[in-house]
Amino acid sequence: MKRADLVAQIRAKQSYLCVGLDPDLSRFPPHILELDDPVFEFNKQIIDATHDLCVAYKPNLAFYESLGIQGWQSLQKTLDYIPDSHFTIADAKRGDIGNTSKRYAAAFFEQMKFDSITVAPYMGADSVQPFLEFEEKWVILLALTSNKGSQDFQFLESNGQALYEQVFQTAAIWGTPENLMFVIGATHPEQFQAIRKIVPNHFFLVPGVGAQGGDLAAVSRYGMNSECGLLVNSSRGIIYAGNDDDFAQKSRAVALNMQQQMASLLEKYAI
Amino acid sequence: MKRADLVAQIRAKQSYLCVGLDPDLSRFPPHILELDDPVFEFNKQIIDATHDLCVAYKPNLAFYESLGIQGWQSLQKTLDYIPDSHFTIADAKRGDIGNTSKRYAAAFFEQMKFDSITVAPYMGADSVQPFLEFEEKWVILLALTSNKGSQDFQFLESNGQALYEQVFQTAAIWGTPENLMFVIGATHPEQFQAIRKIVPNHFFLVPGVGAQGGDLAAVSRYGMNSECGLLVNSSRGIIYAGNDDDFAQKSRAVALNMQQQMASLLEKYAI
Repeated sequence: MKRADLVAQIRAKQSYLCVGLDPDLSRFPPHILELDDPVFEFNKQIIDATHDLCVAYKPNLAFYESLGIQGWQSLQKTLDYIPDSHFTIADAKRGDIGNTSKRYAAAFFEQMKFDSITVAPYMGADSVQPFLEFEEKWVILLALTSNKGSQDFQFLESNGQALYEQVFQTAAIWGTPENLMFVIGATHPEQFQAIRKIVPNHFFLVPGVGAQGGDLAAVSRYGMNSECGLLVNSSRGIIYAGNDDDFAQKSRAVALNMQQQMASLLEKYAI
Repeated sequence: MKRADLVAQIRAKQSYLCVGLDPDLSRFPPHILELDDPVFEFNKQIIDATHDLCVAYKPNLAFYESLGIQGWQSLQKTLDYIPDSHFTIADAKRGDIGNTSKRYAAAFFEQMKFDSITVAPYMGADSVQPFLEFEEKWVILLALTSNKGSQDFQFLESNGQALYEQVFQTAAIWGTPENLMFVIGATHPEQFQAIRKIVPNHFFLVPGVGAQGGDLAAVSRYGMNSECGLLVNSSRGIIYAGNDDDFAQKSRAVALNMQQQMASLLEKYAI
């Protein structure tokens, strides 16, 4: 997908919501578990209930891998079901030596036809570059993550800059705002303003709103740019809003509430 | 697998060789491509030809993922075929927030029954911890990688220590030498001596000998400890030594040569 198409979709829907599709059988409504492919059926109902409110879907690969071959089949069916209008993110956090990253890129972009993949930065340029060589496909690089462990290495200072700042600065020239985004956790709103100075034009994928406690208003205030520049993800907060027959309606209610907040924020900041 | 069993195997075979199983159809001998499951047939012949010379096998997941569901089936068959005596490494470089890393751990340790998995350090303690909670299973943490991109972030200095040194120091207390190893590329032999002072007892998984140019003698001289403490991997150098009917014999010849060098080095350093 082209950046312009993503921005147009955000404006049309007044939403920069990404819904995380992280299927956890132990949290599924009982009636879904009785179906042939519970993971796909669950995802299908979530997609039906939210697609007009969100611009992106983000399956986290761990939840499918842990189900073995059946999980990969459910993932492929889910991807085929997501409307073409939506930006798809393989939350896979891959990255390896160049020769090997090429294979992951083929798996996610050619085999599975995702629009984008999350990639870990630790192994440097040649581990990321192979993913950037596909037209209209995106790398979403981990920079400042939402979890507690982000404190362990990402804030280490070197030459007056934290490691995560070096990741933004160094990686910004590997790709362009047309094929590279960054992950920044919503749990670090105080860092967004300084980060925007390093990378004013790139999109950010922001996890950590919802179950992890991040604040949508603060993230939007400090993180938006003139083309919105944000995809804010919620997974558990939306998809497990209910666990009964009406789970999809409950998911829709949470997604609608987020979309309405986003519409206000887009208006407030005149995007 | 227990550390003691791994060490006993190294002593019995006089080898600390790990063979990387990275199937690349474009490099397969033509007669293998005609079989029903070329990836499994290729791996099977490599395993038959090398199992008495090596102590570990390391499939890199990217090569299987890029083949879709068929790739996962070939991987599972390969794993089932590897003798129980051998240490198995899922070279997957995974790592995510705790809730998600748990899923990856289930996928690789319970579903696929690998002995170990490579994990990326960038997201910190809570992304690694879930993998350490399985008995007789191992985390192999990326610390100093073999590729050119290792220069981008891993050598950044903070408080007088390079990032990769901080990874060794910080992570060494997350696990023990009984469930945690580190990846160090053979392309950095000059760093091994200082690293051994930080983590004297842990095993190192050392890629980069062979196709990537690392030197086995230098790695062994500076990296060995009293229980060997090394698993040296070769992938392309062994499995693509030939690409004709006799490819497996050619692989065996390269593996045998490495094993013989390793036997000498184990004797030299009185392991």
